[in-house]
Amino acid sequence: MPSEPLAVVLISGGMDSAVCTAIARVEGYGIAALHLNYGQRTQERELQAFHDIAEYYCARHRLVVDVSHFALIGGSSLTDTAIPVEQANIASTVIPTSYVPFRNANILAIAVSWAEVLGAIAIYIGAVEEDSSGYPDCRKEFYDAFQKVIDLGTKPETHIAICTPLITYTKKDIVQRGKELGVPFHMTWSCYKRNDRACGECDSCALRLRGFYQAGLEDPIPYACRPVYT
Amino acid sequence: MPSEPLAVVLISGGMDSAVCTAIARVEGYGIAALHLNYGQRTQERELQAFHDIAEYYCARHRLVVDVSHFALIGGSSLTDTAIPVEQANIASTVIPTSYVPFRNANILAIAVSWAEVLGAIAIYIGAVEEDSSGYPDCRKEFYDAFQKVIDLGTKPETHIAICTPLITYTKKDIVQRGKELGVPFHMTWSCYKRNDRACGECDSCALRLRGFYQAGLEDPIPYACRPVYT
Repeated sequence: MPSEPLAVVLISGGMDSAVCTAIARVEGYGIAALHLNYGQRTQERELQAFHDIAEYYCARHRLVVDVSHFALIGGSSLTDTAIPVEQANIASTVIPTSYVPFRNANILAIAVSWAEVLGAIAIYIGAVEEDSSGYPDCRKEFYDAFQKVIDLGTKPETHIAICTPLITYTKKDIVQRGKELGVPFHMTWSCYKRNDRACGECDSCALRLRGFYQAGLEDPIPYACRPVYT
Repeated sequence: MPSEPLAVVLISGGMDSAVCTAIARVEGYGIAALHLNYGQRTQERELQAFHDIAEYYCARHRLVVDVSHFALIGGSSLTDTAIPVEQANIASTVIPTSYVPFRNANILAIAVSWAEVLGAIAIYIGAVEEDSSGYPDCRKEFYDAFQKVIDLGTKPETHIAICTPLITYTKKDIVQRGKELGVPFHMTWSCYKRNDRACGECDSCALRLRGFYQAGLEDPIPYACRPVYT
């Protein structure tokens, strides 16, 4: 058995989660790779990215959890196809319709359950405050509060730390750090809308492309269209 | 539309959840009934009890969420049929093998997501510290910590209060309060082991039967065997 400690890493398949996985490795953890299918439009493409990243980082455990009850609960353009995905509006501080209510709390709760069973001592999640577009559950104080819930809600001998290494990063920072760590960006998928080529238009594409642009690097994944930065 | 405010009520089908539902009604809430199938042995029987109770209390919304990923995550005799259910040992302070790690945090997270979409302003959960057999996520301070996570992790205009009206109750108190409120105990199901008649032997049966005994009442559901109290 490997002697390194184990961390559950949330791997959506996006570039943030890939950089987060690389950081967990650099910080000395073996990887327990956790992916959630929550009924999003791009579920299959993201799942492929998850497996590619887990393979690349030699994950010791993999778990894919179906949380399609988000689609039942509704109230989100990610899961309710009746609500159109908004065009990118990076400057907006209004919470976008792609908001899945309280999603990160659901994700963390699953991660903690698995971590306790595996004996993992950390949970890595690539949350980023800056690009959260006002998602309330992407902020540092949310994770601090959840840490307290973990400490109180798990067995006395269990100690699981939430690690949010990207929380203060900009997308530019993430691209740069990923580049330093040799992250396989070509395996990652961030687009909310398409499975074949990234749309280049949704919030997630816009933020990713701007990050690569600001870092002076080329995003290696294929796009249907790319904005021109001036 | 009814003008009364809405509460999401966790209805497992057990008697605690039925009494909790009655209290939510008495406190002026319309009911949004939430039930979780988490792969437990008695899933079908509990689901029937859920629908009976929801019907009885004229629930305005019902949601059944499949959280069978608990079976994937494992580590619990409730979901892993390889681990035998322990015989009742009420006096024990050791966390029993029926423990599903961090279960209540997962349940609350789902409840909050649904509550935010519905516009519900309260979540009722029939957690009881006394009979928790050491489950760390049945304690008052766990719910207080989770309340903070809700306040920080939902939209600014969202205000959802966790209500744990039974938290300090004994099983005797619950039976007595349920009797006062006319709770249909015959519709409820608490047994961990059997679907036809309650086993009378598992922790849950033992605690329930002792509660009825101490309250001086007869439990109306059928049992395969009943302990003799002296």
